[in-house]
Amino acid sequence: MRNRVYLDWNATTPLRAEARRAMLAAWDLVGNPSSVHAEGREARRLIEEARATLAVAVGALPRNVVFTSAGTEANALALSPGLRRSSGGPVERLLLSAVEHASVLAGGRFAADKIGLIPVMRSGVVDLDHLRSLLRDGAPALVSVMAANNETGALQPVAEVARIVHEAGGLLHVDAIQALGKIPFEINGMGADLATFSAHKVGGPKGVGALVVAEGLTGLEPLLRGGGQELNRRAGTENIAGIAGFGAAVKVALQTLSEDAEQMATLRNRLENGIRGSAGATIFSDEVKRLPNTVLFTAPGLKAETAVIGFDLEGIAVSSGSACSSGKVQPSHVLSAMGYDPAVAQGAVRLSLGWSTEPDDINRALEAWRKLGNTLLKS
Amino acid sequence: MRNRVYLDWNATTPLRAEARRAMLAAWDLVGNPSSVHAEGREARRLIEEARATLAVAVGALPRNVVFTSAGTEANALALSPGLRRSSGGPVERLLLSAVEHASVLAGGRFAADKIGLIPVMRSGVVDLDHLRSLLRDGAPALVSVMAANNETGALQPVAEVARIVHEAGGLLHVDAIQALGKIPFEINGMGADLATFSAHKVGGPKGVGALVVAEGLTGLEPLLRGGGQELNRRAGTENIAGIAGFGAAVKVALQTLSEDAEQMATLRNRLENGIRGSAGATIFSDEVKRLPNTVLFTAPGLKAETAVIGFDLEGIAVSSGSACSSGKVQPSHVLSAMGYDPAVAQGAVRLSLGWSTEPDDINRALEAWRKLGNTLLKS
Repeated sequence: MRNRVYLDWNATTPLRAEARRAMLAAWDLVGNPSSVHAEGREARRLIEEARATLAVAVGALPRNVVFTSAGTEANALALSPGLRRSSGGPVERLLLSAVEHASVLAGGRFAADKIGLIPVMRSGVVDLDHLRSLLRDGAPALVSVMAANNETGALQPVAEVARIVHEAGGLLHVDAIQALGKIPFEINGMGADLATFSAHKVGGPKGVGALVVAEGLTGLEPLLRGGGQELNRRAGTENIAGIAGFGAAVKVALQTLSEDAEQMATLRNRLENGIRGSAGATIFSDEVKRLPNTVLFTAPGLKAETAVIGFDLEGIAVSSGSACSSGKVQPSHVLSAMGYDPAVAQGAVRLSLGWSTEPDDINRALEAWRKLGNTLLKS
Repeated sequence: MRNRVYLDWNATTPLRAEARRAMLAAWDLVGNPSSVHAEGREARRLIEEARATLAVAVGALPRNVVFTSAGTEANALALSPGLRRSSGGPVERLLLSAVEHASVLAGGRFAADKIGLIPVMRSGVVDLDHLRSLLRDGAPALVSVMAANNETGALQPVAEVARIVHEAGGLLHVDAIQALGKIPFEINGMGADLATFSAHKVGGPKGVGALVVAEGLTGLEPLLRGGGQELNRRAGTENIAGIAGFGAAVKVALQTLSEDAEQMATLRNRLENGIRGSAGATIFSDEVKRLPNTVLFTAPGLKAETAVIGFDLEGIAVSSGSACSSGKVQPSHVLSAMGYDPAVAQGAVRLSLGWSTEPDDINRALEAWRKLGNTLLKS
């Protein structure tokens, strides 16, 4: 049997060897990081090492890193009414780009009538003029615009969004979950007030995330209360092994970022050129800057659900948009927001690459597509 | 150098070999459990296996098990206004025993003015008459009474509490985090409507917990929203390895429960007899049923902080009450609630045993106590 080809890296990545080693070491520590004895202090040290690593990676101070149980919890924690900078009043409403992840679209702890949507253009990039007009009318807003979209890979002009938001007295949250390890991302360089990250997108374990806040931001309300962990911002005994694995994965991901990105882009371009050969194939957001690893495409008559199963039977794991809806293939809200009609949105297939994707994986994917293409487009 | 002796099992336990094996196997799975391809389905299967194991262990249906990031999150999720049974109206207020864990005392999503405290007697057991009178006056209540206290080990009369609560039209949440694997606990047998558990108290990894609900309970409001994971009750990519480790740990903990409990009780009794030899030593809650592994004691003049450090320097990890407050030794709210004055509450030391505690660990602890006792009680 031929090896499986994994082209669903935007859903989750294989665990890196460095993360495995860090987690194995953490397993041998019995202590609770909140305990004062030697075992507890050793567990605490592992967490603080990981915190420092992530802080350096995203240009933040360690004390401004809050570990969570996943990107979803980090996003829920970030979207907190009452956030403020010392110079301004608290935010009273939330503006979300229409292409955010479901965990951001859920709106955190803002009431439904305090949440507005920022439309995107057909390219998938937020409509900055519309953002300006939304900010002009109304109370200080927390704006949430992701660094890179998980389905199309489209990058948002985050630095420009930050300028617009700050001029209007607002604050900016950036879901940087897909960006970390694929494009450079520094919280201050981008002008973000809050940014969220997830370990399993950079070769760390599933079930760990982080919220990073800029220095001087206040008013973050904890989502989990009880013990005083994470400087009283997130109660609960820490997932020590997971956090240690996250730190180790981030370290190697950042060290090899530029070479990995170059290699992924080369392979991604080959993949796209092959797909473009199909009659009427469309690659979404290809007119704007994208992540180096993501291809979201469709072709007339393609059904995403059938395509994912067809690729799977050919030994290739691919995705149809977001994988976070319990095995259900749903029409992509991202493509709907970009103005595509539901039939197109239900026909989009995503292939996402990673640092260990090989040229032969691309050959296999294109071979499968040539084989499946005719059948899929007729069904 | 002599081996360290770990007597802080109520804070966290060593990771079991069975949990390690399950987690290693999970690391090799790359899929996201929400993805429909083979890799995703395999990851999903691991989670469902663990869910079935926990369900069987606590007498629930698998569909009523919700995995969370820790006991703290499970407690926060459980304490949800609007919970109801088909036969009754939604709960509108929350009554907490005064000796609950900090994550329960935080009150979940109930407004502060909807939360009441149920006092405990000097033994640490809830005052049932007081509970009855609290229930008599006012709207239907969610009552939260733990199965076993993490500091004293005192067991609560959960089945009796359940009868009282149900007769008054209320619902019962039981924090069974310290009970699981030490005493039998079945959600229906106990009459609980909701029960919470934590992996790292039974030899599973840190950073995994679960909420289990009784069949027919409705109105649980998710705390994390976004993807449709956990039947829409808890969004976020699952900590697959952690969940698999939790399942494996529960399986072995339940298989060996009765022999482990007997062994722990024998050693715990030896330890207590040794401590009782000190002038004026008090063992808390020793007039009521307790967990087989917990000793919370004090002696005149004892300072918990100094004692924990003193034991640590002798190579023995012990605790002063709850370990969930970021390395701070704080006076125990549990002893305060039992009517002890703050000086006593600041002088309590906890030794907690586990399934692999050896007779020699007890010898070492008693030896250290004899050595330290005089110094500690004079300082």
